[in-house]
Amino acid sequence: MFREEIKVLDCTVRDGGLINDHQFEEGFVREVYKAINAAGVDYMEIGYKCSKKIMSPTQYGKWKFCEEDDIKKAIDGIEPKTKLSVMADIGRVEKDEIPKCSESVIDMIRVASYAKDVDKAIDLINDAAEKGYETSVNIMAVSRALDSELDEALDQLERESKSDVIYIVDSFGALYSENIEHLVNKYKKFLKTKEVGMHAHNNQQLGYANTIQAIISGANFLDGTIYGIGRAAGNCPLELLMGFLKNPKFDLRPILNVIEKEFIPLREKIEWGYIIPYAITGMFNEHPRAGMAMRQTKDKDKYLEFFNSMSPSEIE
Amino acid sequence: MFREEIKVLDCTVRDGGLINDHQFEEGFVREVYKAINAAGVDYMEIGYKCSKKIMSPTQYGKWKFCEEDDIKKAIDGIEPKTKLSVMADIGRVEKDEIPKCSESVIDMIRVASYAKDVDKAIDLINDAAEKGYETSVNIMAVSRALDSELDEALDQLERESKSDVIYIVDSFGALYSENIEHLVNKYKKFLKTKEVGMHAHNNQQLGYANTIQAIISGANFLDGTIYGIGRAAGNCPLELLMGFLKNPKFDLRPILNVIEKEFIPLREKIEWGYIIPYAITGMFNEHPRAGMAMRQTKDKDKYLEFFNSMSPSEIE
Repeated sequence: MFREEIKVLDCTVRDGGLINDHQFEEGFVREVYKAINAAGVDYMEIGYKCSKKIMSPTQYGKWKFCEEDDIKKAIDGIEPKTKLSVMADIGRVEKDEIPKCSESVIDMIRVASYAKDVDKAIDLINDAAEKGYETSVNIMAVSRALDSELDEALDQLERESKSDVIYIVDSFGALYSENIEHLVNKYKKFLKTKEVGMHAHNNQQLGYANTIQAIISGANFLDGTIYGIGRAAGNCPLELLMGFLKNPKFDLRPILNVIEKEFIPLREKIEWGYIIPYAITGMFNEHPRAGMAMRQTKDKDKYLEFFNSMSPSEIE
Repeated sequence: MFREEIKVLDCTVRDGGLINDHQFEEGFVREVYKAINAAGVDYMEIGYKCSKKIMSPTQYGKWKFCEEDDIKKAIDGIEPKTKLSVMADIGRVEKDEIPKCSESVIDMIRVASYAKDVDKAIDLINDAAEKGYETSVNIMAVSRALDSELDEALDQLERESKSDVIYIVDSFGALYSENIEHLVNKYKKFLKTKEVGMHAHNNQQLGYANTIQAIISGANFLDGTIYGIGRAAGNCPLELLMGFLKNPKFDLRPILNVIEKEFIPLREKIEWGYIIPYAITGMFNEHPRAGMAMRQTKDKDKYLEFFNSMSPSEIE
């Protein structure tokens, strides 16, 4: 698959940081940045832009806050080819803490928002756009948004926002390819002047397949993470996505090298991927938090009990 | 997704046996059979029907040979709802070693064949059909078959074989959903009187997604294995497939229970699933054997070296 407009965004450090409260060591982030750069990936999301007044720096590591100096130290001396992005959550950042793009190493700001919070997202993303950043609004948990709510959000984003890209985010890993096709078509119907993006989760081993479906349907911004790292079941594995995209600008080898050197040892320390409780939350179109909680207990492999606790008959 | 014609075939013991030379203990096979029965799965493939004159019973366990008495012992006392199948490889079984269906606990015989060996497959499958078995021909490595070769094989199977089902087998886990759609359409064009089946491998995490695509395109026989067990990257995970098929005859709970009890401990002893060397062989449309060999060495995680050794520039 080759389409010049396609851009790949690696969110290894940002989504992976949800597993360990963004406590990655600088050396790890540096190795990821080196690999992503050498692989020719278009963007790398290095963390969240949160306010230290709102989120605690004793609880969270530096990639929750992405201060300029911390980023600069991690990438120092590496020729920058990949653009850097950060994610901003509504209500967790103050606009005056975001410098102008010309004064920052960051190139892109992405705002994560539920469909119902779109007014707040537009306010935040327009500020970022006016400061000179590339911009994206990522509509989270789209598998749970009401159809009318989503239509209204997309209509507003097209008319009122300066965002370059609007993402489909399958937060619960609940969507099938036919849903992806339907959503990309819907997004494209409303978003005449913007690109459509896809951020998939891998609860049902469909993260990569759904990203391919989004490409076929016309999405041009694609998220992936190295070795599929990310909260709970993780994300679309970047290495697979790069194997599918035949664009000669990509080189898979640095990604394979960093998996071997960094991600195999890391996977021994923190957990993500295809694990039955996350498959179950995906099937039920639920947030993985119940699965994440049970994986911290001695009953972490009691799948049948967990399924029963999630079944609609039990929660109605 | 509900379509009454859809049949699910579990090949846990058969394809999983390729990892351990079919050395599963009787107790394990019994637990799998119990779970498959209770889950309402239509068929369970319990192993291969090989001749002990051709394959060595000192090297291989009993599920390589599937003698009637061994099967009977494993399922004794469990009310049989699921039908049993065995696989026969061309050249590894003698026809006179296959009893009449009325004298066997086996219900279905499946012949695995390359497209080019279709004459031999037809000879073997017609013998099985005449003995009263349900029948299937599984065309292996279809991602490497020449188009003209495959057309000819399908035409012959329609005209000359008594097989009920003809399978697409993505032996190398190399196919994408658009290839699956193309293949199911091709199969249906030739096979006016037969069902189409799908047997997917999971090298690129597309085993389940490709099986869904096959369903959408019209395939009615679907293979899966519990927790995705199978040679190298394994197969379409049965638990995910059952989550997608909304047929009320299925019950996911016995499968979750047996994963918890049997497959989590088993996965500590033998290896299958998403492992980078198998993703690489899938991308290159190659048999996983080179990956399986390197996984047995101390260099089992040298992914970059492995990728370079598989790259076309190195083998031309």
